[in-house]
Amino acid sequence: MEDFDFNITIVGLGLIGGSYAMALKDLNPKNIWAVDIDKNALKTAQELGIIDQGYVDPEIPLKNSDIVILCIYPNLAIEFIKEQMDHFKTGAIITDTAGIKEKLLSKINGFVRTDIDFIGGHPMAGREYKGLSFASKDIFDGANYILTPIEQNKKENIQRIEYMIKGIGCKNIIKIDPKKHDEIIAFTSQLPHIVAAALMNGAKEENTHLFVAGSFKDATRVARMNTKLWSELLIENRENTIEQIERFEKYMTEIKNTIINNDQVTLEELFENARGKREEFIEKCMK
Amino acid sequence: MEDFDFNITIVGLGLIGGSYAMALKDLNPKNIWAVDIDKNALKTAQELGIIDQGYVDPEIPLKNSDIVILCIYPNLAIEFIKEQMDHFKTGAIITDTAGIKEKLLSKINGFVRTDIDFIGGHPMAGREYKGLSFASKDIFDGANYILTPIEQNKKENIQRIEYMIKGIGCKNIIKIDPKKHDEIIAFTSQLPHIVAAALMNGAKEENTHLFVAGSFKDATRVARMNTKLWSELLIENRENTIEQIERFEKYMTEIKNTIINNDQVTLEELFENARGKREEFIEKCMK
Repeated sequence: MEDFDFNITIVGLGLIGGSYAMALKDLNPKNIWAVDIDKNALKTAQELGIIDQGYVDPEIPLKNSDIVILCIYPNLAIEFIKEQMDHFKTGAIITDTAGIKEKLLSKINGFVRTDIDFIGGHPMAGREYKGLSFASKDIFDGANYILTPIEQNKKENIQRIEYMIKGIGCKNIIKIDPKKHDEIIAFTSQLPHIVAAALMNGAKEENTHLFVAGSFKDATRVARMNTKLWSELLIENRENTIEQIERFEKYMTEIKNTIINNDQVTLEELFENARGKREEFIEKCMK
Repeated sequence: MEDFDFNITIVGLGLIGGSYAMALKDLNPKNIWAVDIDKNALKTAQELGIIDQGYVDPEIPLKNSDIVILCIYPNLAIEFIKEQMDHFKTGAIITDTAGIKEKLLSKINGFVRTDIDFIGGHPMAGREYKGLSFASKDIFDGANYILTPIEQNKKENIQRIEYMIKGIGCKNIIKIDPKKHDEIIAFTSQLPHIVAAALMNGAKEENTHLFVAGSFKDATRVARMNTKLWSELLIENRENTIEQIERFEKYMTEIKNTIINNDQVTLEELFENARGKREEFIEKCMK
């Protein structure tokens, strides 16, 4: 493991921020600092040795931080950079972890200092809970991590972030255009959350739990989401989300019509198509 | 463990039949026999000691079987009982494992011999694979098992089946009207399979696998289903399935409209409702 002699500040010590801090330990950076408004979270993280020092006031750690990792809601991330603009160290790298990228990047890049590199990031890792107490460095193990670098990002800064991402345990780093990111993620992440919520909202039987096997449990797991965060993500990515819901509705209608038409042959074909794609998908995931 | 000195025949040595045979061992019945058209499956099961003896011709085991467990597709189960009607032992109990109950029961009870008790059953257990090689007695561990007894079933026969179900490791036995069963199961089991298939059918990116975290994987797990079986189940339970798809579509539209209207407050409320119901559901599952 090469030298990673940097000061890193994590902003937001929730599930992702806490997990990030834990995972960064293996890279042995100079300092891991954290900023949060929750003093208890900072105190706990410090006592557990997850961070070296916690701060409610961002100014102190930011002025000495080489890398700043934002683990807060997307709109708050934009505000944070704006408000703290004068406090970042010259040449600092800022990265984020939000599930949406296009608007966020265009906003931040509209006002960020030219000596600072903002590199958009999105770890495909998480849990259906929130808060430091659910944090674990394992969430990055074998996970995919998306980066949305832009032309003005310095090559060596992108490489530094990539090195860090591998260091926390991620398997694949995917570099993609921010707009494309938001389109794909609306399908692979936002749609399954909406589906889980819609399924759960439709549960009317008090004793539903007695009539389920794995299919319902799995399909509704993420209904136990951070509702504030996900509402924000969906609204911020609304055009893509709406498009994906409408595409999904068409595939539902396609299946429904075969049942309405008593057309078992076509229904089985649609299921076979899904089964084949699922097998292929899982094979690719295993690679 | 009380004496369970019966001859049991399992019809259909696939995932459920094979798992049933394995789980029944703990009850130490007099004999576990199996009927299947697949000679290899019978041979393998015999060699592995899963069954005492396998038969392609049902007549031989049926005439000495006190309990017959049908682990075949629902329409095949109806046919099987009709064809083998003269071969069942006097006073035999027949039970099945199909995911639909109302039509199946009314058909079978329309022609079954009066000395035979057909008791409808549906183990809420399974895997997204088919065949003996995926069988495991663990699938019943802690699972729910639904029975749909009717008035003419003998009390002691129902009790015998319940004893057997507990013996294979199931946690809850739920006794319910066949019609009600089909209504509920359309929501808790058939709808999640349709949703999984529709999600998977909508996957267009060749590299979808790079952009997923747990939510998509979990929601599409059962798209890897036995497509022949599930097509049959859905068509046979079509009125309930269509109703459940349409209810689900309304809950999807409700969420979609908040996004279209940029109404983050209502969206968060809908998600909060789902989150609350999911938590309550999981708590009940744990009990």
